[in-house]
Amino acid sequence: MNNSPTPQQAGDRLARVRARRPRVHCLMNTVVQKFVADGITAIGAIPSMTSSPDEIVGFVSKADVLVVNLGTLDADRRKVIELAVEVANDHGKPWVLDPVHSDYSPVRLEFAKTLIARRPTVLRGNSAEMALFGDIGETLKIETGAHDRLTDGARTGTVRNGHRWMADVTGTGCLSGGVIAAFLAVEPDAMAAAAAALAATGVAAEQAAEHARGPGSFAVAFLDALSALTPDELSLHGRIDHEI
Amino acid sequence: MNNSPTPQQAGDRLARVRARRPRVHCLMNTVVQKFVADGITAIGAIPSMTSSPDEIVGFVSKADVLVVNLGTLDADRRKVIELAVEVANDHGKPWVLDPVHSDYSPVRLEFAKTLIARRPTVLRGNSAEMALFGDIGETLKIETGAHDRLTDGARTGTVRNGHRWMADVTGTGCLSGGVIAAFLAVEPDAMAAAAAALAATGVAAEQAAEHARGPGSFAVAFLDALSALTPDELSLHGRIDHEI
Amino acid sequence: MNNSPTPQQAGDRLARVRARRPRVHCLMNTVVQKFVADGITAIGAIPSMTSSPDEIVGFVSKADVLVVNLGTLDADRRKVIELAVEVANDHGKPWVLDPVHSDYSPVRLEFAKTLIARRPTVLRGNSAEMALFGDIGETLKIETGAHDRLTDGARTGTVRNGHRWMADVTGTGCLSGGVIAAFLAVEPDAMAAAAAALAATGVAAEQAAEHARGPGSFAVAFLDALSALTPDELSLHGRIDHEI
Repeated sequence: MNNSPTPQQAGDRLARVRARRPRVHCLMNTVVQKFVADGITAIGAIPSMTSSPDEIVGFVSKADVLVVNLGTLDADRRKVIELAVEVANDHGKPWVLDPVHSDYSPVRLEFAKTLIARRPTVLRGNSAEMALFGDIGETLKIETGAHDRLTDGARTGTVRNGHRWMADVTGTGCLSGGVIAAFLAVEPDAMAAAAAALAATGVAAEQAAEHARGPGSFAVAFLDALSALTPDELSLHGRIDHEI
Repeated sequence: MNNSPTPQQAGDRLARVRARRPRVHCLMNTVVQKFVADGITAIGAIPSMTSSPDEIVGFVSKADVLVVNLGTLDADRRKVIELAVEVANDHGKPWVLDPVHSDYSPVRLEFAKTLIARRPTVLRGNSAEMALFGDIGETLKIETGAHDRLTDGARTGTVRNGHRWMADVTGTGCLSGGVIAAFLAVEPDAMAAAAAALAATGVAAEQAAEHARGPGSFAVAFLDALSALTPDELSLHGRIDHEI
Repeated sequence: MNNSPTPQQAGDRLARVRARRPRVHCLMNTVVQKFVADGITAIGAIPSMTSSPDEIVGFVSKADVLVVNLGTLDADRRKVIELAVEVANDHGKPWVLDPVHSDYSPVRLEFAKTLIARRPTVLRGNSAEMALFGDIGETLKIETGAHDRLTDGARTGTVRNGHRWMADVTGTGCLSGGVIAAFLAVEPDAMAAAAAALAATGVAAEQAAEHARGPGSFAVAFLDALSALTPDELSLHGRIDHEI
């Protein structure tokens, strides 16, 4: 077991994603589906997005990892999410929960809590969202922001890559969830996988900002940078700290 | 009461949006949700997009202004829209109605008329859509096009900013509705607010066209320009005429 | 009847799309609606996207051609698709079927087969999808890939334009379906129409790649190139082979 996720290891894990091309199934909000799919493709994985109850078992069974994003949640999607999580858990597939805006909606917060009880591999949100959840057992907690903080109860990690323009583009957090999922599919140590994923999106953001004039061109350059990122660049520029 | 919305005032109102960061809740069609969210963020406001009936009361109660867009309308969204409008009216929050393609669908036109009877603050559409509606009381009517024409029954305004490439990008009209909403949240005079909003998107379009080669790069540059637009630039380049 | 679709004819057909501006109604998956709408606008046609059962008859009746895309399919969309196909067939309007990911879902595959029995004008998919369907009568079969292969049982055509980055952008296949539809609306010979459409998107992709650094900037440049493409350029750069 790797106790210390390092930038060098982050580069190795990116190489693993690119070599294996894991399938990432996303139950994603209606706002950012294309952007998240493009991000998952850019990192080297294969996205799928359907949320029909009569197809979900098939798609999740064929996937390597599942992303559950609670943005624009409604009753139909809650049912499909429950089916999807059941398949993921039955098959021992990792899954990521992104409790988007659970601080805005009691219904959404309650549902997020029922899902947390089903033990996602990763719970990722911003500070307002993460403040809603206390002890969540073995699930890796990730609070994303200017710096990303990861904790699994025993270890803590911090990723210091990124750029402030990520906050100006709708869906960068949701896209991070998809990229974290891609790394989870190829690395059993969730802390190491997620640190590598956040370093990758963070380094890509830093590179993109050099070619951008604002949130429109930044989002475009970000996808270019994510696609072009090499394991060596990630090892060189990734800034991952850890404590045991 | 400002009888004459001027470019100088438009600049002041943009500064107000940037300082206050109003929350704009959108019941938006499925095609352009990310583009509209990005536009609302670029102008300096905070977008939300959910359309679930069990969350809508919470989201609209927390918002400063509501946008109701009738693109890709269906029966589920009609119910949610009715709930949202009721909350907005009960709380005295301004709301914008965009009767997208009401000229294509009798069901949609009927629904638009029932909503107009509930007195939106603003009704915004293209010439084909606006031709469907006659006297609508106090609601500010906005017909967008090469030049935008605003009338509230007593005053008339014209905004002459813009670029023809706006017509080649899906969602620019919908995005305008979101930006108008952001200005309504910080300016009680609807005519002044909407004129400022349309001058802002229009000036951003003019600036974007200088950096673009076609509809793809124009949409990207438009978001950059909206984000970078300063109150001084808006005061300088805004072209707002008015008649009393 | 044109037995041999040629690049010169492709240029003529693009001019016809630009002059007539056909209306293309799309029953499109939730992921790529804006990108597909932007692509249809860029080629010179007029897109619409609603999928409400109480509006679909009106929208399809007013359209010149229909696109049925099975991505993110669910029970509600199956019903609307059946209504739409009935209107298209009753009115003799051409329609395109894109059986996205039918290889991932038995429900989707069954539905695709029932639609094929209703005789779409064109069936377009990748090699994994097209392998699922055997003899489909008069429907033009298109297998898109590095080269696109078209067959109607009597004639075969190949379009050799394109760029490998098309595979890195979510929705390029779906967008191709929309552009094929636009050409079908102005050219009764489906093989000639589809060959021209695929040459157009392929040439635009080749031009876009010269201005792009990765999948983000490529998608942007692709829309620019599609919009700027002239009939003469298409005649010059189109690479269409055919066999009788």
